[in-house]
Amino acid sequence: MEESFVPLRGIKNDLHGRLACYKQDWTGGFRTGIRILAPTTYIFFASAIPVISFGEQLERNTDGVLTAVQTLASTALCGIIHSIVGGQPLLILGVAEPTVLMYTFMFNFAKDRPDLGRNLFLAWTGWVCVWTAILLFLLAILGACSIINRFTRIAGELFGLLIAMLFMQQAIKGLVDEFRIPERENRKALEFVPSWRFANGMFAIVLSFGLLLTALRSRKARSWRYGAGWLRGFIADYGVPLMVLVWTGVSYIPYGSVPKGIPRRLFSPNPWSPGAYDNWTVIKDMAHVPLLYIIGAFIPATMIAVLYYFDHSVASQLAQQKEFNLRKPPSFHYDLLLLGFLTLLCGLIGIPPSNGVIPQSPMHTKSLATLKHQLLRNRLVATARKSMSQNASLSQLYSSMQDAYQQMQTPLVYQQPSVRRGLNELKDSTVQLASSMGNIDAPVDETVFDIEKEIDDLLPIEVKEQRLSNLLQAAMVGACVAAMPLLKKIPTSVLWGYFAFMAIESLPGNQFWERILLLFTAPSRRYKVLEEYHTTFVETVPFKTIAMFTLFQTTYLLVCFGITWIPIAGVLFPLMIMLLVPVRQYILPKLFKARYRCCIGTRPKCRDPRRHGHKKPGRDQTSEQPEDH
Amino acid sequence: MEESFVPLRGIKNDLHGRLACYKQDWTGGFRTGIRILAPTTYIFFASAIPVISFGEQLERNTDGVLTAVQTLASTALCGIIHSIVGGQPLLILGVAEPTVLMYTFMFNFAKDRPDLGRNLFLAWTGWVCVWTAILLFLLAILGACSIINRFTRIAGELFGLLIAMLFMQQAIKGLVDEFRIPERENRKALEFVPSWRFANGMFAIVLSFGLLLTALRSRKARSWRYGAGWLRGFIADYGVPLMVLVWTGVSYIPYGSVPKGIPRRLFSPNPWSPGAYDNWTVIKDMAHVPLLYIIGAFIPATMIAVLYYFDHSVASQLAQQKEFNLRKPPSFHYDLLLLGFLTLLCGLIGIPPSNGVIPQSPMHTKSLATLKHQLLRNRLVATARKSMSQNASLSQLYSSMQDAYQQMQTPLVYQQPSVRRGLNELKDSTVQLASSMGNIDAPVDETVFDIEKEIDDLLPIEVKEQRLSNLLQAAMVGACVAAMPLLKKIPTSVLWGYFAFMAIESLPGNQFWERILLLFTAPSRRYKVLEEYHTTFVETVPFKTIAMFTLFQTTYLLVCFGITWIPIAGVLFPLMIMLLVPVRQYILPKLFKARYRCCIGTRPKCRDPRRHGHKKPGRDQTSEQPEDH
Repeated sequence: MEESFVPLRGIKNDLHGRLACYKQDWTGGFRTGIRILAPTTYIFFASAIPVISFGEQLERNTDGVLTAVQTLASTALCGIIHSIVGGQPLLILGVAEPTVLMYTFMFNFAKDRPDLGRNLFLAWTGWVCVWTAILLFLLAILGACSIINRFTRIAGELFGLLIAMLFMQQAIKGLVDEFRIPERENRKALEFVPSWRFANGMFAIVLSFGLLLTALRSRKARSWRYGAGWLRGFIADYGVPLMVLVWTGVSYIPYGSVPKGIPRRLFSPNPWSPGAYDNWTVIKDMAHVPLLYIIGAFIPATMIAVLYYFDHSVASQLAQQKEFNLRKPPSFHYDLLLLGFLTLLCGLIGIPPSNGVIPQSPMHTKSLATLKHQLLRNRLVATARKSMSQNASLSQLYSSMQDAYQQMQTPLVYQQPSVRRGLNELKDSTVQLASSMGNIDAPVDETVFDIEKEIDDLLPIEVKEQRLSNLLQAAMVGACVAAMPLLKKIPTSVLWGYFAFMAIESLPGNQFWERILLLFTAPSRRYKVLEEYHTTFVETVPFKTIAMFTLFQTTYLLVCFGITWIPIAGVLFPLMIMLLVPVRQYILPKLFKARYRCCIGTRPKCRDPRRHGHKKPGRDQTSEQPEDH
Repeated sequence: MEESFVPLRGIKNDLHGRLACYKQDWTGGFRTGIRILAPTTYIFFASAIPVISFGEQLERNTDGVLTAVQTLASTALCGIIHSIVGGQPLLILGVAEPTVLMYTFMFNFAKDRPDLGRNLFLAWTGWVCVWTAILLFLLAILGACSIINRFTRIAGELFGLLIAMLFMQQAIKGLVDEFRIPERENRKALEFVPSWRFANGMFAIVLSFGLLLTALRSRKARSWRYGAGWLRGFIADYGVPLMVLVWTGVSYIPYGSVPKGIPRRLFSPNPWSPGAYDNWTVIKDMAHVPLLYIIGAFIPATMIAVLYYFDHSVASQLAQQKEFNLRKPPSFHYDLLLLGFLTLLCGLIGIPPSNGVIPQSPMHTKSLATLKHQLLRNRLVATARKSMSQNASLSQLYSSMQDAYQQMQTPLVYQQPSVRRGLNELKDSTVQLASSMGNIDAPVDETVFDIEKEIDDLLPIEVKEQRLSNLLQAAMVGACVAAMPLLKKIPTSVLWGYFAFMAIESLPGNQFWERILLLFTAPSRRYKVLEEYHTTFVETVPFKTIAMFTLFQTTYLLVCFGITWIPIAGVLFPLMIMLLVPVRQYILPKLFKARYRCCIGTRPKCRDPRRHGHKKPGRDQTSEQPEDH
């Protein structure tokens, strides 16, 4: 994407690119059949649970003006619209923490003004949304997203890690709070005497760690040794939602003298309770807001616009990282324009707006990559078995798999012929083994070609790009509003465990995180990192440079994290990330040699670093490293 | 060992064999240096913690006549004597659960008799021990241990699994009891109101699972990716004791309103408190026991003798399984004779006797195998690096490692030349790779020969057989008596976690357990079991036969487990294991074909099944299996 600031050109390009594959976005999704439910449920939970928790937070902060009902409604509404008319269907929309913080600041400002107060608060936020929408329209039309390419890997991964830290912070804070008396509650209640509070806290530790550990385990079920294949597949696909159910069930085991309030559960009004619909008619009140406040609404609006512009684009970018080998085009400009409309809509009906969220958006892409991998794998395994039963040689086997793979590629109108991809090359060791067993054209058996293992190596990473999973998950979030009485059975401690799970799940694949781990890896084991992640920078860049660069980035991350603790400035932490653009362009080049920058991601034009040196990862390199014992 | 019932011949053979290597037993131990502390501490904890817990149980059951002080004293005394003058120094002695059960039954019998009662109880058990000792002398002299060979793998592994189940049962029961009011305590105390009881139970879950999970993790530290080599080695060696300390520390975190009794901690009198020495002078009271009871003591004595005969021999056998490739001879007859003396000694000073314990004895051997592996490995890695720096070819490299290995073998007087062992053969794939890279005599580098990985494959399993670790751990158990005030800081819940840890640690290497797992392994992944354990029976025996046989054994196990629940008969469950001898000899041959019996361990004379078909484990076999998906 070149940087172009010609008005509307970006939007036109986006529309052109996405319209070309719009039909395939739907047909591809429906053709997947029942399997689409795996990524859908996975993302639904990742989307709904934080939104419910943010809704609770908002309810406490706004004296009940906004609740989880409104945050869920906004997430569902924006999600459904975006999945149907949005540009990039991999992007997941939701009410995020910064929005909650902004609304809290605005409420604190409004509630004490006699001519605004609690009653006109939503009407005033309506005006804020109007201004925000106008700013977003301007940004979208003027092509502001062109510079998103300047936020390279360095910024995106830093932001991803920051979000993971914030989620983890929330998990720890939530768990600690389980030992305390919650605000707003009747402090005299039985469950708040010291003994029951301590009991509640300990129970919360059991539930949250139980959820976290079992959920992490279940994601790896496919490589378990025990259990039938279908069962392992089922657990890997649906294990996380299943574990939320299981641990909610466990929370009901204590009986007898244990008070009802232990463990603590979600607190939210039912959507049909009186007053829950007050906000939908907020548009009527907007005329009553004094003119001064309508103009003053421009100030918070600029902050929200900057925040959304950044969040939305980075979430979209992280969902479309190079590693995923996406085949359909991005749509930054048009999606920002649509976000403007969505913000306007939410403002007018008095609900907090949604924007693109991290880590859910990259989680969505990753889960669709797993889905595509499963589909391709099943096909290739069948092809390989068939070939081997016909006594095919290794080269025949490989070419028949190559054919089967090509058949599964959807031809796209806009696609360049050069982008056509095939299977990865066969492993050297396999070819060697085959040739040593006799002629390379002799029939192969499973001694040489271990189907289960080798096909995983042959398959390139691909993503099932479609709109169905996004639409379905948004619809399910909408259904949550109706299912509120059921949701209220989930203990808050399970939520904290889930927050920690999301933080940990977002780490693998983040190169910044992998570099941090590399610093703690014993020198003699560094080649293992290579074997697993194929991160070639370890081969080409001296370790000292990697360490220096990672330490610099970590310091920057900690500064950003520190800023989120400052009350009002905290909302503006995206500015710190924006500051990375000049830092990367003017300061980093002085510190690090140009030829290494490509590999550590500071040079945007660098092509996929995973191409070169994929085979035999770094065995030679081990010998250079000092030995440890 | 042939079956021979000529009086004293067994003892003479044992003494002859063990005396030949007695000096080496000590020199070998001392030459290891500081590294001997790793298996020592590991076994010390495995030995002391159950003994303390059994002591507590005994204290409750005998109204405080016997306490943890006595069980620790017996374990230390017998351990020290056995490690110095015993036959097989791999055998660990300790007060075991069956002894506790027998003493409980005897106390319940004695306390209500007016002419015996609480006061003469220990004097009476003195007489029981006298009779037991006489019976053990007879069994040892008459060569009863000759038939121990008839308790093949099938009985030993069944017994091992049964003990693991009993440990796990104790862990679960202990954890459940943390939610209840303990007997003997003041039921009105603050910590026993429902809320604090619930809090205590939840805290107990956190502590015990914390210990269990971290201890299991720490044992695998050597293969971690992160941290320096020495740190990983240290954690793998001392992680379990360290975790007991860490979680005891965690148990002190709650402060403020939390009562002192939460979490519950070990309860035992200090050895210097009044009355703790009453039992040492029990020999004076033995003359006051009425004659009828002296004669009647013969009845419990027979039960204890049968129990000890079986327990001691099976523990010794499991510590000397074929897989360990031991180089020093066994000593069943002489050790049983010594056990008779130890029982007599314990009886006369009024402490419960010790006998060979499971799973500590096989755990001891396993930890010494790890020690030996580390010693050999360090030497071979150094040799390999030196050779490679001198541009040696693969065959030169291999022969220089072979030499280094031979130098580390201690020549033993009694050893047959045929038993001389060398390194395992080089992996086929390595040789192939080397030959494909050019001449087999060309200099190798780490691309072909990955030192860290391949040396593990080259090393056969060997055990550092010596007496020092046993002596030291017994002495440390003795020191526990003095350290009682410190031990009392350990929460009981950490103990339950440790029990579960011991149960789980005793499973790997138990072929019966591995066969149970195999039943739950997806057909397409069965070859993985082979790759890891080299259990060749999977290759040669049809799966259906394995399944049938394992189900039969599982049923038998569950029957044995059920019997332990019957109050008095429970002590006699070893009889069920003895019953296996006729079952194996007369019933099993009718159910399973002779040629498979060797591989599933029912034919005693079958030589090491790990010899044949070690290489390329079972790849071919995968294709025969039905596919699962």
